[in-house]
Amino acid sequence: MRIVSFVRDGHPGIGVLSGDRIVDARSALGDGYSRDLRLVLADPERTLESLRKLEDAAGDFEIDEVTLLPVVQRPEKILCVGLNYDAHRVETGREASNHPVLFTRFASTLIGHGRPILRPLASAKLDYEGELAVIIGQRGRRVPVERALDLVAGYTCFNDASIRDWQRHTHQFTPGKNFPSTGALGPWLVTRDAIADPQALGLRTRLNGEEVQSGHTSQMIFPVRYLIHYITQFCELVPGDVIATGTPSGVGYRRSPPVYLGPGDVVEVDIEGVGCLRNPVVDEVSAEEASR
Amino acid sequence: MRIVSFVRDGHPGIGVLSGDRIVDARSALGDGYSRDLRLVLADPERTLESLRKLEDAAGDFEIDEVTLLPVVQRPEKILCVGLNYDAHRVETGREASNHPVLFTRFASTLIGHGRPILRPLASAKLDYEGELAVIIGQRGRRVPVERALDLVAGYTCFNDASIRDWQRHTHQFTPGKNFPSTGALGPWLVTRDAIADPQALGLRTRLNGEEVQSGHTSQMIFPVRYLIHYITQFCELVPGDVIATGTPSGVGYRRSPPVYLGPGDVVEVDIEGVGCLRNPVVDEVSAEEASR
Repeated sequence: MRIVSFVRDGHPGIGVLSGDRIVDARSALGDGYSRDLRLVLADPERTLESLRKLEDAAGDFEIDEVTLLPVVQRPEKILCVGLNYDAHRVETGREASNHPVLFTRFASTLIGHGRPILRPLASAKLDYEGELAVIIGQRGRRVPVERALDLVAGYTCFNDASIRDWQRHTHQFTPGKNFPSTGALGPWLVTRDAIADPQALGLRTRLNGEEVQSGHTSQMIFPVRYLIHYITQFCELVPGDVIATGTPSGVGYRRSPPVYLGPGDVVEVDIEGVGCLRNPVVDEVSAEEASR
Repeated sequence: MRIVSFVRDGHPGIGVLSGDRIVDARSALGDGYSRDLRLVLADPERTLESLRKLEDAAGDFEIDEVTLLPVVQRPEKILCVGLNYDAHRVETGREASNHPVLFTRFASTLIGHGRPILRPLASAKLDYEGELAVIIGQRGRRVPVERALDLVAGYTCFNDASIRDWQRHTHQFTPGKNFPSTGALGPWLVTRDAIADPQALGLRTRLNGEEVQSGHTSQMIFPVRYLIHYITQFCELVPGDVIATGTPSGVGYRRSPPVYLGPGDVVEVDIEGVGCLRNPVVDEVSAEEASR
């Protein structure tokens, strides 16, 4: 099942894909749930079966009749894994590690499928990073590796767009990963039952139609089940939390010559069995310019 | 003015200190505001004058009749500055930097004054870090240094308790800074008007009554006004956001021999003109033990 978060006529909603069309889940879920997918995920017994019945319903509208939101709009936590594909670790010149490299994003950085990634006023060193994202469906703390995937609600695509100079201002990545409208999450949540093995998915990133990253989730140094195990040693995962599992090699700033994103560019993150997340790039406009 | 967030008889509230007693602000603010200080800070014109009138009122109860909550319970963002006092940078062996070192905490790590800091099951390397915390009162993006303090609602004390081995698992600090109940924030918000200069405050940390850190906010490498300027270059600050401004030298793991926190210890972070944040340390109990 594919679930979308969207806005239509100014109202937020949750929908289910029926073929290429969206079935509005408002009447199936009730108003209380349709504002945020976190609420749906937190109460699967009441919500998921109702949503499944919509998969065969007639669609209410086309995808391009709505604005897609980040799959989860306001996750409590967004944990991003750095350097989780060895070829990418090598291209960045970093040493191997016995533990996952984890940094965080604020929810205010997220955008949905189709929405523009902003090249900030502060820097032109905007780069793509195509990744598989895991959306958490169940609370868990100190979860053994063998049971870790039970916590997963589903999967989606992530573009962990990064401002490279600000990421390297110091040894901590926070600034370069937290510019507004740089974290694209979508287009939809594919529920866990539809993905037999999260470590068996081809992942491709395209820039203006040309393939720039080609990886396979079998190449992850720390697989999804281990990431969940490790993270739940130090914090509790809750419904709606996002784990971005890292990017393969081929990022722009390590190319020769380096490639950075600018206005007019279009980035696609295409993951086998999950979907294709597509975002154009535009320049950020200052408040002064915007008010002119 | 000193503002507290608390729970009494199971109900969350906001209060103002009148001498040593708390004046419940529920009737002055209305129920809608009294759940979370973020809401109060976001609407200062409607709330702050009402709160000021309570400073001379008769107190409704003693501080120890309530459970104090983190000054802000669910900040949208918690930004922590590493290595912002040179003597601490030197004791950690890190190089100087032209930019502030920034890492983040999740709101789920916060506790209030008096609540126990948890030594986690995963590690015994629990350490204190006394810090001045800034609480944001106004939205801002790309704020010049000269106007940066206008964004500040007030100040409080922070104990950025850290799990040293997990902090050093990789080059990113995230795991060691995000164990539950390790971020003590309180006892209260001191409003900005009461602090003539945030860079002129003595800061002391005591462990079981003995002074272990003694610093002065004039020693910050990046003062509060610059931190706000820098942070708002890459993200928007909003009411309730927390900036923990870094710790002076004297942390436990750099002592000889190293000092780590354990059950029975009591840590105090005492900042001139702000207050004294006091927290005992207890061992985390597993879910299995807790249910016995």
